[in-house]
Amino acid sequence: MAQKPSIPKGTRDFGPAEMACRNYIFDTIRSVFKTYGYAPIETPSMENLSTLLGKYGEEGDKLLFRILNSGDAFSGIDFDSYRLEGEGDNYNSKALSLKVCEKGLRYDLTVPFARYVVQHQGEISFPFKRYQIQPVWRADRPQKGRYREFYQCDVDVIGSRSLLNELELVQIVDRVFSLFGVAVCIKINNRKVLTGLAEIAGFPDKVVDITVAIDKIDKIGLEAVEAEMKEKGLTDNAVKVIEPVLLLSGSTSDKLSEMRRLMNGGSLSGGVSEAGLKGLDELDELFSLIDAAGISSAVELDLSLARGLNYYTGAIFEVKARDFQIGSICGGGRYDNLTGIFGLPGMSGVGISFGADRIYDVLKGLGLFPQEVTSCTRLLFANMGQKELRYAIPVVKRLRDAGIACEIFHEPGKLKKQFEYAEKKSIPFLAIVGEDEMEKEEVSIKNLSSGEQRSFHIADLDGMGGFIG
Amino acid sequence: MAQKPSIPKGTRDFGPAEMACRNYIFDTIRSVFKTYGYAPIETPSMENLSTLLGKYGEEGDKLLFRILNSGDAFSGIDFDSYRLEGEGDNYNSKALSLKVCEKGLRYDLTVPFARYVVQHQGEISFPFKRYQIQPVWRADRPQKGRYREFYQCDVDVIGSRSLLNELELVQIVDRVFSLFGVAVCIKINNRKVLTGLAEIAGFPDKVVDITVAIDKIDKIGLEAVEAEMKEKGLTDNAVKVIEPVLLLSGSTSDKLSEMRRLMNGGSLSGGVSEAGLKGLDELDELFSLIDAAGISSAVELDLSLARGLNYYTGAIFEVKARDFQIGSICGGGRYDNLTGIFGLPGMSGVGISFGADRIYDVLKGLGLFPQEVTSCTRLLFANMGQKELRYAIPVVKRLRDAGIACEIFHEPGKLKKQFEYAEKKSIPFLAIVGEDEMEKEEVSIKNLSSGEQRSFHIADLDGMGGFIG
Repeated sequence: MAQKPSIPKGTRDFGPAEMACRNYIFDTIRSVFKTYGYAPIETPSMENLSTLLGKYGEEGDKLLFRILNSGDAFSGIDFDSYRLEGEGDNYNSKALSLKVCEKGLRYDLTVPFARYVVQHQGEISFPFKRYQIQPVWRADRPQKGRYREFYQCDVDVIGSRSLLNELELVQIVDRVFSLFGVAVCIKINNRKVLTGLAEIAGFPDKVVDITVAIDKIDKIGLEAVEAEMKEKGLTDNAVKVIEPVLLLSGSTSDKLSEMRRLMNGGSLSGGVSEAGLKGLDELDELFSLIDAAGISSAVELDLSLARGLNYYTGAIFEVKARDFQIGSICGGGRYDNLTGIFGLPGMSGVGISFGADRIYDVLKGLGLFPQEVTSCTRLLFANMGQKELRYAIPVVKRLRDAGIACEIFHEPGKLKKQFEYAEKKSIPFLAIVGEDEMEKEEVSIKNLSSGEQRSFHIADLDGMGGFIG
Repeated sequence: MAQKPSIPKGTRDFGPAEMACRNYIFDTIRSVFKTYGYAPIETPSMENLSTLLGKYGEEGDKLLFRILNSGDAFSGIDFDSYRLEGEGDNYNSKALSLKVCEKGLRYDLTVPFARYVVQHQGEISFPFKRYQIQPVWRADRPQKGRYREFYQCDVDVIGSRSLLNELELVQIVDRVFSLFGVAVCIKINNRKVLTGLAEIAGFPDKVVDITVAIDKIDKIGLEAVEAEMKEKGLTDNAVKVIEPVLLLSGSTSDKLSEMRRLMNGGSLSGGVSEAGLKGLDELDELFSLIDAAGISSAVELDLSLARGLNYYTGAIFEVKARDFQIGSICGGGRYDNLTGIFGLPGMSGVGISFGADRIYDVLKGLGLFPQEVTSCTRLLFANMGQKELRYAIPVVKRLRDAGIACEIFHEPGKLKKQFEYAEKKSIPFLAIVGEDEMEKEEVSIKNLSSGEQRSFHIADLDGMGGFIG
C-alpha cells in the first residue's frame, strides 16, 4: 500500500537549512518595512474568482489555480450544452470551470490589496502604508527558477500622490540590499515620459512598441532599434524624433534637460507633450529628494525601463544586482487607479515587490548568507543516564528560558554517537555531566570546534551564556 | 463595472492590529520551539490528492479543497459514464472530481510532515525535531471560531521513543503559556491505558465507546455513564470492572497505583493487560520527569482523555486555559506509525499542535496582549515644507537605520491634520522642525501623551532613541 511520496511539480519543500536562509531574507525585509512605518496585512489564499478574473489579462486568467466547489460540484450541470461542436468529448473548459469553481488561489498580492482597501476603506486611515509577505500561485509551466507557488514581499502606500513615497521606496531598497551586502543598481523611469515620447513622435498609441525597441539599444545597437521601430509602423520622421533619446548620455540632470528640450517642442516634430513634461517634473523632484537622502546604491535614470505599462502611471522602478546575473530582483511603480475596478476611484498609490527567490539565489551565489543564520541549536547536553538526565533537565530549562537553544540527547548511549549527532547538526557546544560534576554542582561545556572545555556552577547562567555565545 | 468586493466565506482578512497580535502569538511560540532545538520546515500548500486522500477518514476526504487541473481540464471526459442512473443531471461527483483534480490544499500539517520525512529521509538526521507554522484549509461549514483557512503551529520529533521527548513537549507548553501569562492545565493520558481498560473489561474492541462514556463523568455522573456503557453493549460485569476508574481520586501517584492494581489482575475480571501496564510504566516515567523539570502549569492525569484514538499509540496531551472557557487550545500525542503509509514503517514520533485562533481569543478575552504589540510607528516627523523636508530626510534615515520606526508626514500641510494622523495611528511621538531648529541643527520631539517636549542635536541619535523609547 506504500505510495512513493512526491509533491506537485513546480512546488517545493523547504528544509531547516533553506528555511533559515529564507527567514533571514524575510526578517530583514520585514524589519526595514517596519522602520519606514509600514504595517503588515494578510489576505486569504483563496479569493472569489470574480475578484481575480480579468485583472491579469487573458493569459493571467489561464494561469489561475481554481478551486473546485465543495460538496456536489457537478450535479445539475448540462454538460452537453458545453460540448464544442463536432469535436467529440471536447468541452468549453473556460465556461465549465466557471460553473464548478467559484474560488481561485491568489495570483499576486496587488489585486487582493486593492480588494482589501476597498472592502475596509472605512477602517483605514489614509495614506495607508502596508506590507504583505505571502505566497502566490500561478499555473505557469515550471522551469528553473520559476515556481507554481512562491512568496511575494510587497510594500505599498495608497492614498497619497506625494513623491516622498517614491523616495522612501528607493530608501527601503537601498537599506535592504545594504543589509544583505548586495551592491545593486536602482533604475528609475516615469510612465508619463514614455507617453510623451510616443506623443512627440506622433504615435501616441505605440508607447509599448517604442519602449520595447528602446529597451534593446544596449543589445542590438542603434540601427537595429530604429529598424524595429519602422517595422512596427513608425515613420522615418518619428524615428528621427526618438533618436536623441537613444543617444542620451551624461549625468541624470543632463539627460533630464535634453528630454525637457524635446518634450517642449524641441524635437523634429515640434510638438509639445504635457504628459511628458509632467513626467520630467516628477523625475526632477524625485532625483532631488534622492540627492537629499544620500542613497548608497547606484541610482540610474533609464528611459527604456517599461515594466507593466498597462498598469503604472508615474514612477517605474527596477533593481538589479551589480555582481550577479539574474534579471530584476525588485520592481514596482506608481498606479493611479488600482482600486477603481472595485468601486473606489481616484486612489493613487505606489509600491514595490521584492523577489525572494531571486534574492535567495543572489545571496547564495555570492556567499552572502551570514554563517550564524543556519546554526540552530547552540548546545547539546549529553545524556549519560537517568540520574544525570534528571540533573541536567533543570539546568537546560534555565538556559532555554534565557533564550539559548539547547537539546538534550534523546537517550542515554555512547558518547561517540552523541558527538556525531552534534556534528551532523552543526551544534557548536557539548555539555557533559558525570558523578564529578554532579557532586560539585557543575556542568562541563566543550567548544566542539576549538576543543576548549570549561566548567561552570549550575547557577552561573551568565557564565555559560557568555561561553556558548 | 464596479464589483462589491468580498472574500470567500470562512476566510479572513487580517489588518495591521490583528496582524500585530497574531505575530506576537507566532513569534512567541516560534521562539520557544527554537530554544528546544526544533528547526522549521515548510511544505507546499498543494499536495497531490494521492497523498491526502484516505488519511482523514471519509469525512475528511469530503472536506479537502481540490484544485482544478490547469489547462483544458474537461476535454476527453465521457461525462455520461459518470451519470447517476435515473436521476437526470446528477453525477458521481467523487469520481468526476478525481478525474479533473489531481491536487488538493493541505488539510493539516501532520500528513505533509509524514510525506516530507519519507521523501527526504536520506537528508534527515534522526531524531528529527521540526516545527511548522503554516495555514491549512478545510471545506467545513463556517461558523463562529471555525474557519476554512487557519494556521496550525505543529512541533514534532520523529525517530525516537524516548519519553524525554514527551517531557520536552510539556515543557514547551508550560513555557509558551507562561510567556503569554495564561494559566493552563495540561491533561495527560496514555492510549495504552485505554486499551488496557477495554481489555480487562473483556471488550477490547470497545475502547472508543468506553472512553467516550468515561469522558462524561463530570457532566452526567456515575450512573448515566454506566448506563451509556451498557447501552453500547458492555455487560454488567464489564461496567463493574471499569467503575473503580470512574471513582479514582487522590494524587497522580495514587491514581497510577490503583490503575496498576487493576491492570495487574486486581479487577473483577481478574485479567491482566500487558498493554495497560506498559502505558502505566510510561505515565510513571513521564510524571517522574515532569517532577524533575519543575513545571509551573497544572499537570493532571486524565484517564478520560482520548484525542484521535485511531492515531495515537502512547501519550496523549490536551491543554485548557484555566480562566477562560474555550475548549482545548493545544493538543497532541505519540504515534508509532505515521510514515508507514508512505513506505517508511517503524518511525515513532510525538508532537503537539497549538491552536493559534483559540489562543488569540484567550489572550483577547483576558486582555493579555502586551500594549507595545500593537504600536507600530514610534515617531511621526511633521512635514512643514520643502526645505524642512530635506532637512528631516537624513535625520529620519539615521533613526530608521537604528531600528526606530518613523514616518514623515507625506505632504506639507496644517499641523492639526498631521497631529490627527499621529493620533489615528497611535503614533506616540511627533518631531517638528522649523527655522529655529534648522539654524541650531536641532529637532524638537514631543511626547504626544505626556506633552513633554525636548530638543536634540540632529547627530544625537542616542538621545533621541532614549526619549522615543
